[in-house]
Amino acid sequence: MRDKNVQTFLACDAEYGAADVVLFGVPFDGTTSFRPGTRFGPSAIRGESFGIETYSPYCDRDLTDCRIFDGGDLELPFGNTQRVLELIRDSAADLLADGKRFVMLGGEHLITLGAVRAVAERFPDVHVIQFDAHTDLRKEYLGEPLSHSTVMRQVWNLLGDGRLHQFGIRSGERTEFEFAREHTCLHKFNLADFTETAAQLQGMPVYFSLDLDVLDSSAFCGTGTPEAGGVTFKELMEAVLRLHGLNIVGCDINELSPHYDHSGSSTAAACKITREILLQIAR
Amino acid sequence: MRDKNVQTFLACDAEYGAADVVLFGVPFDGTTSFRPGTRFGPSAIRGESFGIETYSPYCDRDLTDCRIFDGGDLELPFGNTQRVLELIRDSAADLLADGKRFVMLGGEHLITLGAVRAVAERFPDVHVIQFDAHTDLRKEYLGEPLSHSTVMRQVWNLLGDGRLHQFGIRSGERTEFEFAREHTCLHKFNLADFTETAAQLQGMPVYFSLDLDVLDSSAFCGTGTPEAGGVTFKELMEAVLRLHGLNIVGCDINELSPHYDHSGSSTAAACKITREILLQIAR
Amino acid sequence: MRDKNVQTFLACDAEYGAADVVLFGVPFDGTTSFRPGTRFGPSAIRGESFGIETYSPYCDRDLTDCRIFDGGDLELPFGNTQRVLELIRDSAADLLADGKRFVMLGGEHLITLGAVRAVAERFPDVHVIQFDAHTDLRKEYLGEPLSHSTVMRQVWNLLGDGRLHQFGIRSGERTEFEFAREHTCLHKFNLADFTETAAQLQGMPVYFSLDLDVLDSSAFCGTGTPEAGGVTFKELMEAVLRLHGLNIVGCDINELSPHYDHSGSSTAAACKITREILLQIAR
Amino acid sequence: MRDKNVQTFLACDAEYGAADVVLFGVPFDGTTSFRPGTRFGPSAIRGESFGIETYSPYCDRDLTDCRIFDGGDLELPFGNTQRVLELIRDSAADLLADGKRFVMLGGEHLITLGAVRAVAERFPDVHVIQFDAHTDLRKEYLGEPLSHSTVMRQVWNLLGDGRLHQFGIRSGERTEFEFAREHTCLHKFNLADFTETAAQLQGMPVYFSLDLDVLDSSAFCGTGTPEAGGVTFKELMEAVLRLHGLNIVGCDINELSPHYDHSGSSTAAACKITREILLQIAR
Amino acid sequence: MRDKNVQTFLACDAEYGAADVVLFGVPFDGTTSFRPGTRFGPSAIRGESFGIETYSPYCDRDLTDCRIFDGGDLELPFGNTQRVLELIRDSAADLLADGKRFVMLGGEHLITLGAVRAVAERFPDVHVIQFDAHTDLRKEYLGEPLSHSTVMRQVWNLLGDGRLHQFGIRSGERTEFEFAREHTCLHKFNLADFTETAAQLQGMPVYFSLDLDVLDSSAFCGTGTPEAGGVTFKELMEAVLRLHGLNIVGCDINELSPHYDHSGSSTAAACKITREILLQIAR
Amino acid sequence: MRDKNVQTFLACDAEYGAADVVLFGVPFDGTTSFRPGTRFGPSAIRGESFGIETYSPYCDRDLTDCRIFDGGDLELPFGNTQRVLELIRDSAADLLADGKRFVMLGGEHLITLGAVRAVAERFPDVHVIQFDAHTDLRKEYLGEPLSHSTVMRQVWNLLGDGRLHQFGIRSGERTEFEFAREHTCLHKFNLADFTETAAQLQGMPVYFSLDLDVLDSSAFCGTGTPEAGGVTFKELMEAVLRLHGLNIVGCDINELSPHYDHSGSSTAAACKITREILLQIAR
Repeated sequence: MRDKNVQTFLACDAEYGAADVVLFGVPFDGTTSFRPGTRFGPSAIRGESFGIETYSPYCDRDLTDCRIFDGGDLELPFGNTQRVLELIRDSAADLLADGKRFVMLGGEHLITLGAVRAVAERFPDVHVIQFDAHTDLRKEYLGEPLSHSTVMRQVWNLLGDGRLHQFGIRSGERTEFEFAREHTCLHKFNLADFTETAAQLQGMPVYFSLDLDVLDSSAFCGTGTPEAGGVTFKELMEAVLRLHGLNIVGCDINELSPHYDHSGSSTAAACKITREILLQIAR
Repeated sequence: MRDKNVQTFLACDAEYGAADVVLFGVPFDGTTSFRPGTRFGPSAIRGESFGIETYSPYCDRDLTDCRIFDGGDLELPFGNTQRVLELIRDSAADLLADGKRFVMLGGEHLITLGAVRAVAERFPDVHVIQFDAHTDLRKEYLGEPLSHSTVMRQVWNLLGDGRLHQFGIRSGERTEFEFAREHTCLHKFNLADFTETAAQLQGMPVYFSLDLDVLDSSAFCGTGTPEAGGVTFKELMEAVLRLHGLNIVGCDINELSPHYDHSGSSTAAACKITREILLQIAR
Repeated sequence: MRDKNVQTFLACDAEYGAADVVLFGVPFDGTTSFRPGTRFGPSAIRGESFGIETYSPYCDRDLTDCRIFDGGDLELPFGNTQRVLELIRDSAADLLADGKRFVMLGGEHLITLGAVRAVAERFPDVHVIQFDAHTDLRKEYLGEPLSHSTVMRQVWNLLGDGRLHQFGIRSGERTEFEFAREHTCLHKFNLADFTETAAQLQGMPVYFSLDLDVLDSSAFCGTGTPEAGGVTFKELMEAVLRLHGLNIVGCDINELSPHYDHSGSSTAAACKITREILLQIAR
Repeated sequence: MRDKNVQTFLACDAEYGAADVVLFGVPFDGTTSFRPGTRFGPSAIRGESFGIETYSPYCDRDLTDCRIFDGGDLELPFGNTQRVLELIRDSAADLLADGKRFVMLGGEHLITLGAVRAVAERFPDVHVIQFDAHTDLRKEYLGEPLSHSTVMRQVWNLLGDGRLHQFGIRSGERTEFEFAREHTCLHKFNLADFTETAAQLQGMPVYFSLDLDVLDSSAFCGTGTPEAGGVTFKELMEAVLRLHGLNIVGCDINELSPHYDHSGSSTAAACKITREILLQIAR
Repeated sequence: MRDKNVQTFLACDAEYGAADVVLFGVPFDGTTSFRPGTRFGPSAIRGESFGIETYSPYCDRDLTDCRIFDGGDLELPFGNTQRVLELIRDSAADLLADGKRFVMLGGEHLITLGAVRAVAERFPDVHVIQFDAHTDLRKEYLGEPLSHSTVMRQVWNLLGDGRLHQFGIRSGERTEFEFAREHTCLHKFNLADFTETAAQLQGMPVYFSLDLDVLDSSAFCGTGTPEAGGVTFKELMEAVLRLHGLNIVGCDINELSPHYDHSGSSTAAACKITREILLQIAR
Repeated sequence: MRDKNVQTFLACDAEYGAADVVLFGVPFDGTTSFRPGTRFGPSAIRGESFGIETYSPYCDRDLTDCRIFDGGDLELPFGNTQRVLELIRDSAADLLADGKRFVMLGGEHLITLGAVRAVAERFPDVHVIQFDAHTDLRKEYLGEPLSHSTVMRQVWNLLGDGRLHQFGIRSGERTEFEFAREHTCLHKFNLADFTETAAQLQGMPVYFSLDLDVLDSSAFCGTGTPEAGGVTFKELMEAVLRLHGLNIVGCDINELSPHYDHSGSSTAAACKITREILLQIAR
């Protein structure tokens, strides 16, 4: 009983130096407009990960064969959105400088912006793949340019046209869809075109942002704004397996709000997707 | 702060006189035999509607372009089923007389009978489309002819053979299915045949009754009798989009029981379907 | 069905001009550090108020005899705490200028600051009575001076020593209790001394701030940080009845977080206390 | 495995003929105006009773020493309130004719009327003791004279002045309290005077009606209208122990609504009170 | 009210002697490693079965035409796994000796072992069909050879190679999948191949073991380890209908954990599948 | 982000060697007879402890002034009760040998036996104080001598007469109460006599076992068998403060079952009591 009580995502117990991939959490939900609570996402995913297996029959790989370090959650100042994004950027930049790939667990979707800032500095030609129910392309939300519903507009500001690939989108304002038509590669309702996009992005640096509400609300009710009409877990899994050949330099998994997940099934689904993404990214 | 606190379904804030479509609630669950609670459906749908968008990427229309009046809920005497049906009939008749189409939010399915009485008086050649898990064709239920499980038999009494079109049905007594074989157009298990029916009903007055338990219980657990084996949200959405060309004179959306919907995902699905139906019906 | 769907707290349906007391909601939880959700408090209190009676056997008065206007909720910009406080201040100042007393429904406790700013301008000799589990006297919280846990320190900044009367306090940092010893009138654990304080404040303008977590967590679990060791509902009711003789110029009732109140009993308790406070304040 | 699956309340497995006391359920909530669900009360109490002990350290008696028959639930026609009351009356009358005392598990409070009809016929001098949060003395409710909120007015119609003893009352309309002042023995807020009443009723036939919402909502949240400001479980237990010397000819325990009792603690409390009442009544 | 309160699964009220099929429950979850609670499965299925119909439109048969006896639950010693398995074996053996087929309701999956022991003695050439998310082929679990995750390895010990047919499997350790490759007929992820297997097993004695977590967690969240990526209810139903021609000598339905099924939809799905299986097995 | 993610109870971050008190968890619920789930207790207490303060206004001490090491949870073999008890005994013995006092977080109550075995070896004159709703004095439970309901009988076996002090007891079999009369110091229903007992035990080695269900179910619903009629949180707190002068050599806090604690208030109460006990024991 002399050992400290170290908590990691299932089998992500490599030392930092030896690790290929680094996992960390960002418990932030400060701009959530409807039902808050994604701040509890990272600890729920970590805690419940022991209910699943380290081995994936989908890709025949095992987490115990990977070298992944779980660095816990960032400590964040409450209510200072700008500062939170800087902290995320700095953490991501450090990891990239150390030659690590990373998987960031949200939290709300705005956290993507911090990570993409770091990634776009290091990999100016990065493409961003977004799986999401929502466009997240508003210019501002109630006067605020930094928000979960403006995050991809901000990402576009960094990347420019043709570098943001949006899939599964089924909710947004009319003007957002109009914006997307001109500036992003938006694929409505499902992931059907993802194989093609994945083929096009071979060899390029790619950032992958997974808003779990891309899943149909039947498969993922544990989120602030459950969205009917989404993809099934099998469809999401199939797409995630396609990440394998890509050069994923960073990634996030966000919008689990465990207090709305009474049965635990959304958290369990998030754990399984996290395992699978780690297995695709780790070498 | 001098304005009164008016509550409407998202963006349904037209004045009555200017409105093309009228929305109203009927918080009645007096004949529910298993788990009651649909009386809380209308207020849940209204309250949670602000979690969705006014714009639909499915049909590229926006509620802000429509003229819809939300008249709140009917006030109902407890435990007097006959009187409740009369109040519904009267309200519906007034709306039709004023040249309005209406969308009625339940409550349990029996409320359809009140509305169809008004509709059938004004449009004697009306057809009724029912999406439902249950036949609702019993002659009586525990001796009572007015019940959620007899409602479509009562509707048939008003309409006669060949005018009741039932879809998604997967539950009922043997005798109900036998009755349906002779007297109604019953389509078991799914909505596959709906396109054909919709084509046949072009130009005729149509009443559309949506019992939300037509959805599979994975997509809609927030109801008194969740029924596995139903349609997916996508299948329902696709069928609802087919309503566009039809002459819908009245409509109801019923059987949401929000106290069984801990995650809020059933209520959110009901909101989205309500928006989509409004967009199909409004001009 | 031509009337708009006006929602008020039970029987608070006076016209603004005729009203003696104005009720309004502030759905803000932007600085909540643990479990968010009090943004849903005002609408829950309003919606569930119809489960209680207008008459109080405690004080033999009836809401139907009072003239109270319910102005609904303030519309607030997300994530801009400073602006939210200004909006509250402005609303409260307008009400005071119109000669109204007000009851503000939170939301988190920081909202008190906005209201006290308006009250202290108009009534420079105002005393503030706080019922709460927490001191809320931190100088800053994670670097932020505007927070639910600093609100009473900010109020003290406006009022100075001896004008802040704290009751039921059982949680805080050591330095907060040390600060209280010198600058506020802090009564730990219960409301036993309230009769005496109420007697002392006769005739003076008084602002009353009720953080519902002053209640023991057995009586009030529907809050972000349920606190065991608090007062019973009967003890709180008894103290609230003592408000009758006082010159209450403004008041707030805060920290109900209905998503943690599965049985609805916390919301029902909040409704009953709200009724009783209205009955004490209205003339 | 040849035995049928007989379900009883804990240890209530006597044969009917040998039984001194008969327990039965009435799963009726047809006139509930706010949150329905007490129809599930009897089966919840029966099912969860195996979580408690047969022995009571309060009165040093054991259910295994009693002869109690559990007759299951009455079968009731839906939505026919009048007929439900007749069925209850008939069942109770049969039991009294067979020389049994009975304990009836609700269901909503209106069921008391059926039982008191039978009791008052056989024991014209019966007194009724009511523990309740609500007066239940309305003349009608939304035009309906048979309702959970009129039940004790109906009982008074049968008994006349001075025979209805009400305890723990803290909710009702002003006119109900005025009625009580002239016609019933109403004791507000608590059970403090019950010892005295119990002493006065020695030797007389007594019917005891326990609306479990007499308990404070902290001790009993699993009910349609949880009422803060009630008695503690210990206070209720103490009063129930006072039933021992009385000539209780019939009794009911009502208003448990288990779907609002997520933790099961309300159901467990109901089980324990049921055990204790059985132990006081059985010989 | 002289009848005892017999509880059965819907319409399973035949006398034992006359019965063709016997239903019984095994409320055991003693080796559950993650979230326990399946001990409450049998009573939940029995209690909620009254929410569904006796008639199946899927196969046009009715439970009221069958002769099924519901023998209630086995009484089990706590914490003695070996003894529990013996009791199950004995019960199953008695039923087989009396010429009955049986349907056993779990409880956790380990209970299958007890039943298969009895079946394999009587029908040495029996084949076992397993629908499951998990391989359950571990040799031991934390040193323990009798566990929910070793149960099918133990079954294989009894049967040998080629007699265990596994479908829907999507979780397990790498070594389990390796074992399966050599010794069992494992079909990953879905039930697509079941038609073929069913054809092959015509005429042979078959034991059917249904772990309900074969369903996708969207369709079945009420279980200890909800597993995303499973089959839909429709797919399961289709496969169950294929059981009709087979010689099913025994069967189990396990892993419903009702306390994680807040909406009741998992329990309702379990009830419907139980009905359908009974209809396929009964003659 | 190079630091590992160490999780401790609030502020219990001393190094082992420097620590005065050691905290550890025992996630075991293998003999629970009614509703399992206390296995999740230790991690819930640890995780939610950050919702409370380090400072106690009850005793004016602060956890940040103490030297406490949190060793995480023991790893336990499933379903081998005897071995679990040995592991607990060994861990406790090691701690005592290193001169540490310990606080063990359950888990079910049987874990006390393992700890008392170690304590009684080292301190043969130890007294055991038990706060509990249940006697836990059965000789065996369904044939099993090692069970949550026999644990104190087993403790008595180790200690002999007059060394077991039981408080708050309100549930058990008649024979258990009879046994207590002769062999233990049993104080029914409350903690009123604890001051006297505490005075008597001054200077002696004492083991303190807190079954949290000693609390009334209104204050603590998050447990397998919630028991009405218990002590209030204030009464428990007052008694815990009395531990200060005693020579507590070991201690446990058990029976929190967080899945039945939807609002989190039971877990929060457990956290606060844990803090207070740590503050009394640490030097």
